[in-house]
Amino acid sequence: MDVLLDFGARFLHQLQSPTLAFLLGGILIAALGSRLTIPDAIYKFIVFMLLMKVGLKGGMAIGEADIGAMLLPALIAVVMGCLIVIIGRYTLALLPGIRTEDGIATAGLFGAVSGSTLAAGTVVLESEGIPYEPWAVALYPFMDIPALVLAIVLASVYLKKKDGAGEKVAIWPIVKESLQGSALSALLLGIALGLFTNPDRVFESFYEPLFRGLLSVLMLIMGIEAYARLNELRRVAHWFAVYAAIAPLMNGLIAFGLGTIAHYLVGFSPGGVVLLAVIAGSSSDISGPPTLRAGIPTANPSSYIGSSTSVGTPVAIALGIPLYIGLAQAVFGT
Amino acid sequence: MDVLLDFGARFLHQLQSPTLAFLLGGILIAALGSRLTIPDAIYKFIVFMLLMKVGLKGGMAIGEADIGAMLLPALIAVVMGCLIVIIGRYTLALLPGIRTEDGIATAGLFGAVSGSTLAAGTVVLESEGIPYEPWAVALYPFMDIPALVLAIVLASVYLKKKDGAGEKVAIWPIVKESLQGSALSALLLGIALGLFTNPDRVFESFYEPLFRGLLSVLMLIMGIEAYARLNELRRVAHWFAVYAAIAPLMNGLIAFGLGTIAHYLVGFSPGGVVLLAVIAGSSSDISGPPTLRAGIPTANPSSYIGSSTSVGTPVAIALGIPLYIGLAQAVFGT
Amino acid sequence: MDVLLDFGARFLHQLQSPTLAFLLGGILIAALGSRLTIPDAIYKFIVFMLLMKVGLKGGMAIGEADIGAMLLPALIAVVMGCLIVIIGRYTLALLPGIRTEDGIATAGLFGAVSGSTLAAGTVVLESEGIPYEPWAVALYPFMDIPALVLAIVLASVYLKKKDGAGEKVAIWPIVKESLQGSALSALLLGIALGLFTNPDRVFESFYEPLFRGLLSVLMLIMGIEAYARLNELRRVAHWFAVYAAIAPLMNGLIAFGLGTIAHYLVGFSPGGVVLLAVIAGSSSDISGPPTLRAGIPTANPSSYIGSSTSVGTPVAIALGIPLYIGLAQAVFGT
Repeated sequence: MDVLLDFGARFLHQLQSPTLAFLLGGILIAALGSRLTIPDAIYKFIVFMLLMKVGLKGGMAIGEADIGAMLLPALIAVVMGCLIVIIGRYTLALLPGIRTEDGIATAGLFGAVSGSTLAAGTVVLESEGIPYEPWAVALYPFMDIPALVLAIVLASVYLKKKDGAGEKVAIWPIVKESLQGSALSALLLGIALGLFTNPDRVFESFYEPLFRGLLSVLMLIMGIEAYARLNELRRVAHWFAVYAAIAPLMNGLIAFGLGTIAHYLVGFSPGGVVLLAVIAGSSSDISGPPTLRAGIPTANPSSYIGSSTSVGTPVAIALGIPLYIGLAQAVFGT
Repeated sequence: MDVLLDFGARFLHQLQSPTLAFLLGGILIAALGSRLTIPDAIYKFIVFMLLMKVGLKGGMAIGEADIGAMLLPALIAVVMGCLIVIIGRYTLALLPGIRTEDGIATAGLFGAVSGSTLAAGTVVLESEGIPYEPWAVALYPFMDIPALVLAIVLASVYLKKKDGAGEKVAIWPIVKESLQGSALSALLLGIALGLFTNPDRVFESFYEPLFRGLLSVLMLIMGIEAYARLNELRRVAHWFAVYAAIAPLMNGLIAFGLGTIAHYLVGFSPGGVVLLAVIAGSSSDISGPPTLRAGIPTANPSSYIGSSTSVGTPVAIALGIPLYIGLAQAVFGT
Repeated sequence: MDVLLDFGARFLHQLQSPTLAFLLGGILIAALGSRLTIPDAIYKFIVFMLLMKVGLKGGMAIGEADIGAMLLPALIAVVMGCLIVIIGRYTLALLPGIRTEDGIATAGLFGAVSGSTLAAGTVVLESEGIPYEPWAVALYPFMDIPALVLAIVLASVYLKKKDGAGEKVAIWPIVKESLQGSALSALLLGIALGLFTNPDRVFESFYEPLFRGLLSVLMLIMGIEAYARLNELRRVAHWFAVYAAIAPLMNGLIAFGLGTIAHYLVGFSPGGVVLLAVIAGSSSDISGPPTLRAGIPTANPSSYIGSSTSVGTPVAIALGIPLYIGLAQAVFGT
């Protein structure tokens, strides 16, 4: 009972954290009809800055890391990416009024990863003083790419069965398309630069100090965007909204469980477990949509983009992050 | 006599301050035909950053402030907003070649408040080491909204008298339109976040350190813009330029006088008096024009936007701010 | 032999410097088909920030500088600007398949100066702890303007000889056009503000700390851009690529030699000699192209812009800067 109360208090405390408050503030002012917008050029630049920072830090850490310790978490990330798509695909198929292609695309987007949510997770962990393996951010592609590949393969199999229209899916183009996306490119370039050059000075004078502030602006943009996309979501089956509200937390909790196993088996840190849950709970907002649009052209983008942007992401950030941190504090006593 | 000499010296010193120098530099290079421009996306982002910073700081301060002390300054702000519009409306009506609607809209814009000018005022005060109540920035809407509402009401009354065309004015839509503008939204959101969350770290690592620098860029943009708009002003009656050159200083001085009364009655700080004068001397550059365009559609935007951007704002910043600071130093001995 | 080995080691070390690594990283991800882009508004703002910072620092230094010491380096800059154009014009004229106008325009662009390359040079010098006269950045226009003027005059003389089409060239409009370009405007405004106002606080809180980081982003953009422009270069004679690969280093080395003479005659610092070589090795990327397009309208922009952006600039930065620094360390023992 004490554990539960303790968890409740920590959860409420997190809701007041500025990172989440900017997200809620964005939703609020958009709902009140504010004309405040942050230009798209700024949005794109902020996403680049955050992923470059996360990548540089990860890259500098991988150089010193024990590669062996990464294996199990990376495997869990791959498993989670596939699991989310499979669970999502068959759950959504059971719900009334949902076209199967739309369901598969939505499950794929929720299996894919959001760099912004990941960045928010690292800031909240740092605010709470919970350490994590810096290479944990490199788990991103291990979950993102399998999820997108699997969703596109499932859609193709389904379409072929249905009317023979689906063609044989080549996997490499999907992987390549995913790696070439702006978010993964920035993250992987950052990791490479962190690994092979000495970016300490530019990291410490620029990427690191601006991180927290740029993230606050990004949260605001995402809040405004979430509200703006609600209309899109209203035009599709309501079950998408239900799925989008539940899936992030469910996926995050499964990943938290698997991460906890890795904690006891190979010493994966509590902060790393939280990040794994944050990654699993997130749904892609930048790179995923164009990949899915190209890979499952018959799916309706309003269904999956609307679900992810207007419900999935706010839930993943504003409820998910405090939930996993509260859990970690309760379970691991950090 | 000594007081006058002293004031003159302080005034000249202020003209060399970098904040004002960037404004004058912008006018200068635009006049010399430079093709240097700062992209619009950057301009919008800088305005957001400055108002968010001013709002956060104000919000964090309001939490600890004595609300009673705010009452008289807020009342003065409301009175000033109305007074500027009334004086401006009847002054401009007396001048030859000015359409009454244009005069009312111009008076409304000079009654409304410029967030950029307010931000410049706080930086110059901090450079001079003159303290002010951080909640003083929250006086912005108390002057801005009454001025815009009154101007639109006056225009409607005038048009109805003239040809029965004006309709009954609903006040709430104007207030709402004004609050939903991007500048006031950012300021009020900042105040709310400062009041209800703990944004200290993001404030101190991001909004606060970037403030002075971003303001220097904004001043440059406003200088370039002021010169570019001169052509627009040339196409309307010259009396607009005369009004725009005199009104900021006159309005600022009246507000300085009323603020001084508040200083003696309720201990309103000298820095607060200066900010009140800066707010009164400023004319809206972002939120005001669209509100007026919607509210007084028959007024010619070249007259009021040209007056405000190309003459009013440079006068309010480059002459007004040094004037009130010099006065405060002479009067209050700060 | 030891000197050579030492130079080789220093050269390799420089290639790992983050400034150059971001440039190479940009080329790499573009070659791998990444869709990562940095918005144009951010690019323009970064260039402004860097040149304003370089200008402010130069302006603050000129105030304390011995003007006499600037005379010889400034004269060398003028001579280099003309020399590069003359050598380039006659070299390119000898090569097969190159239209003379295109050759002259290309030589002009390589004589003109790149603010981004100059900024990169100052960062690498500072990383290496090699001091330079801060006014050395003010050598920029002394090389840039003569080069552009001479190229346009040579083109006009050539066209007049050929078919009498060239008109008498007025020199002042070219100088004015060049000074009004966004890069030189920002640099000169920065110098003026540094010289006549006290921008220390805004410089130290904003322009200086952001410099290194913004430059890393700019290098990335330039790398992406260099790869993207390769296609353009492929459509013109291959000799342009050969010239663009050799000219930066050759021009830089000549300037290094002349700078070394100034070192022994008037004590021009080793860092200053490096910067002179960096300026001479750079080719204009922002201001030069429009001036040349207006001044030599019959020249094909793909030839000169392609040469400069996709080959000249990467060579000037990634090979040139390490080369001159290695040389300076070997020659002057800094």
